[in-house]
Amino acid sequence: MISKNKIKYIHSLELKKKRKEENAFVAEGPKLIDELIGHFECLYIASTAEWAEENRELTETYPIDIVTEEELRKISFLDTPQKVLAVFRQHEHSFTPAIIEKNLCIAIDGVQNPGNLGTIIRLADWFGIEHIFCSKSSADIYNPKTVQATMGGMARVCIHYCDLPELIRSLPSDTPVYGTFLDGDNIYSEQLEQRGLIVMGNEGRGVSAEVAELVTNRLYIPNYPAGRQTSESLNVAIATAIICAEFRRRG
Amino acid sequence: MISKNKIKYIHSLELKKKRKEENAFVAEGPKLIDELIGHFECLYIASTAEWAEENRELTETYPIDIVTEEELRKISFLDTPQKVLAVFRQHEHSFTPAIIEKNLCIAIDGVQNPGNLGTIIRLADWFGIEHIFCSKSSADIYNPKTVQATMGGMARVCIHYCDLPELIRSLPSDTPVYGTFLDGDNIYSEQLEQRGLIVMGNEGRGVSAEVAELVTNRLYIPNYPAGRQTSESLNVAIATAIICAEFRRRG
Repeated sequence: MISKNKIKYIHSLELKKKRKEENAFVAEGPKLIDELIGHFECLYIASTAEWAEENRELTETYPIDIVTEEELRKISFLDTPQKVLAVFRQHEHSFTPAIIEKNLCIAIDGVQNPGNLGTIIRLADWFGIEHIFCSKSSADIYNPKTVQATMGGMARVCIHYCDLPELIRSLPSDTPVYGTFLDGDNIYSEQLEQRGLIVMGNEGRGVSAEVAELVTNRLYIPNYPAGRQTSESLNVAIATAIICAEFRRRG
Repeated sequence: MISKNKIKYIHSLELKKKRKEENAFVAEGPKLIDELIGHFECLYIASTAEWAEENRELTETYPIDIVTEEELRKISFLDTPQKVLAVFRQHEHSFTPAIIEKNLCIAIDGVQNPGNLGTIIRLADWFGIEHIFCSKSSADIYNPKTVQATMGGMARVCIHYCDLPELIRSLPSDTPVYGTFLDGDNIYSEQLEQRGLIVMGNEGRGVSAEVAELVTNRLYIPNYPAGRQTSESLNVAIATAIICAEFRRRG
């Protein structure tokens, strides 16, 4: 059984403003919740009797409502609800620019699509990139669609929202700042260090003018064969993946 | 003005069954329609007066309704409608297995998410892969979400639905069939030919058992650093991108 107030509360967490007020977010599905539960404070669980039965240690630790499939459908943000939904506490990670001097990090400059952001977090996790710096104009990491697309990657990747130009200006001048541009240099013939920032821009407009000026290494993913007429660009998550794979191939 | 019947007709094209009956599909937005119009027969356009004004040559050639923003919102499959929606005729491409002997092609073995399929078509276009072979269990290329995600790539990439095991068995035995598996060999140390099939599997289950048996080269995209705990896998479109980029880097 789940109360009307609880249903209202969960629905309200679809909105960024409300998520911020409540300092909370929703995640769904056994696998994702299993990944997040050690990393984020769990505030509430709604699950089917079946999941609760298989996860006794969790149901004894956290506030839980056992719900029917129909009730789960009512509260879920998914087309196909997956046995369990949980509410977690948001948390902010602290950082110092020294992280970027020593490690390869990603900067997100206005990526709007929540699914794209979540997919980037998932692949960052795969490639051992532990810090992502997002401009405030970027999608919210706690959007339900982002959370689901991370597939648990957000348990291991720290996301920081900040003023990107200010962050980049605070770095020592020898810290590389990579960005992709249609007139950049072929990534396969460029020197790549396993540290610094890889800047990824907005889906339509690319990297903002202010950040573009601060990029030290302009890269380009060549299409094939060179000169053939093709799509104008790659999806931002796809481009991020190809770039990260190329950095790590040489790592 | 747009008639109620027309609205009903457009809405009905969200369903695969109806799209098949009508042999038609919907695409939206000036850029996408501009890319498709030379490659697919245009059956109908609904556009704002503004778009119609800028595209006189099209409005004189194809049946068109001028619609208000509100009418467009009513017929659109997008959260943010984009000035114009068009209905195109589906078309089937013919092919011979000889294409695969000579060119690098992709096989889609049960990819379910329409956005993933569309994103794969877009990146195939970028990497000059002109033929994609989909199992019948895969998402429909004419799903509105797939069409939008191709960003026009479907104008240049031919999609064939077929029996994949049968197709692979019909290839000469020296045609390479690549697939990714968690226990495959590091893609960066494998020999890769610029021909044959790259098989990509279902989002959850991967490559089907029947197709897996026919794969001649089992590949793996290494995570970084090796042995670190990470996400279990990469999104299927992301993995496709990294694989295609690696093939073409050496091309």
